[in-house]
Amino acid sequence: MSKRIAGPEIERLIQLLAKVPGLGPRSARRAALHLIKKKDQLLSPLALAMGEAVAKVRVCSCCGNVDTSDPCTICTDPRRDPATLIVVEDVSDLWALERAAALNVRYHVLGGTLSPLDGIRPEDLNITSLVSRVAEGGISEVILAVNATVEGQTTAHYITDQLSGLEVKVTRLAHGVPVGGELDYLDEGTLTAALKSRTVF
Amino acid sequence: MSKRIAGPEIERLIQLLAKVPGLGPRSARRAALHLIKKKDQLLSPLALAMGEAVAKVRVCSCCGNVDTSDPCTICTDPRRDPATLIVVEDVSDLWALERAAALNVRYHVLGGTLSPLDGIRPEDLNITSLVSRVAEGGISEVILAVNATVEGQTTAHYITDQLSGLEVKVTRLAHGVPVGGELDYLDEGTLTAALKSRTVF
Ligand SMILES: [Zn+2]
Ligand SMILES: [Zn+2]
Repeated sequence: MSKRIAGPEIERLIQLLAKVPGLGPRSARRAALHLIKKKDQLLSPLALAMGEAVAKVRVCSCCGNVDTSDPCTICTDPRRDPATLIVVEDVSDLWALERAAALNVRYHVLGGTLSPLDGIRPEDLNITSLVSRVAEGGISEVILAVNATVEGQTTAHYITDQLSGLEVKVTRLAHGVPVGGELDYLDEGTLTAALKSRTVF
Repeated sequence: MSKRIAGPEIERLIQLLAKVPGLGPRSARRAALHLIKKKDQLLSPLALAMGEAVAKVRVCSCCGNVDTSDPCTICTDPRRDPATLIVVEDVSDLWALERAAALNVRYHVLGGTLSPLDGIRPEDLNITSLVSRVAEGGISEVILAVNATVEGQTTAHYITDQLSGLEVKVTRLAHGVPVGGELDYLDEGTLTAALKSRTVF
C-alpha cells in the first residue's frame, strides 16, 4: 500500500505473514485482518504458540530432527523399531515419510546433500554422527531415503562407503512408476528402472 | 497425524496455523516447519509482531475501524478530505476500497448489516455514531458502500432515513458490469441496472 491505512504494527504483521509459505502479499493482508478481528480466539493463542516454539525449538543431538525436546519425540518413542534407520536430507522429508506412515522406525537427518559446487562437504552434513550411531550397534538396516538427484545419489554413495566396514545392511528407496502415475508422462530413467525392478503380478 | 512426531508445542502451532485463512491443514504443516527452520529470521519476529498487535489493536472510537491507535490512522490522516464519508459493513470492505484507492476520504464501519432473522437490530450496528458524526457538521456527502445484498440494501435504506433530517447528500455505489466482466455471465438485475445507468460513449 502506498498510503498508510493502518498502524506500523499491522503493516509489519502483514509484511511478515507474506513470507509464510502458502501466503502471498494479498493473502497476508486478508490473514492479518482475520487474525486482528479474532484477536482473542486466534491471534493471541498463535502469538503465544509461536513464542513457545521460539523458546523451545532445538535440533535433536541424536538424529538432527527439529523438535521442542532433545532427544526428539521420535528418538524417545519406545514403540519405534530401533534397528532400522531412515536417512533423509531434510526434516521436511522426515515429515513426508511420517505422513505416509509406512514404517515405524527412527531417522537420521543429514541437513543437506554433498555438493562440491555449493561448497557442501561431508563435514558440513550429519554423516560422522550417522556412522557413530551405527557403530554403537543395535542398527541392522540403514535406508537411504535421499532425493533421486545427482547430489542425492552422490551422497548415498559416500554414506555407503563410510558404512562399509560396519555390520549393517544399506538399502535405498525403489525407483518405479508413482502410484497413479501415467507411463507416457514418465522420463526414460524412471521407466527403465521400473522395468528392471518389475515384480510378479 | 495419528502418531506424535513432534512435541505438543509444534502440534499446537500447526493446529492454529491451519485456522489462518489461506492455509489448510497441509499448508499449515509446511508453514510450521518453514517457520521453525527460520526461527531467528521469521518465527521470532512474527511472534513478536503478533504479540505487539494483540497488545495494541483496538476499535477506533470515531469510525469503528480496527487499528493500533485510537483514533485510527485513517481518522487522523490530515491529507484526507473530511467532508466525504464512506459507510462500509466491515473493516475488510474498508481495506478493499483503500486498495482501489479511488477516493482519499474517511470511513464509518457499521460492523454488519441489519438482519431481523439473525437478530441484528439498528442498535447492534454503529448507526447512532454515524448520525452523530454527520450531525456535528463538516460532512457534505455520505457514500453508502454496503454490499448489494438484501440486508445491505435494507441497511442502506434505514441509514438514509436516519440521515434524512440532516444537511447531507447520501449516495450509493453504481450498479453495472464489472470491469473485465462478460455480459453472458451476469445476472439480469445487474444487466438491467447497467442498461438504466448507461452513459454516453
Ligand atoms: Zn531425534
Ligand atoms: Zn477511525
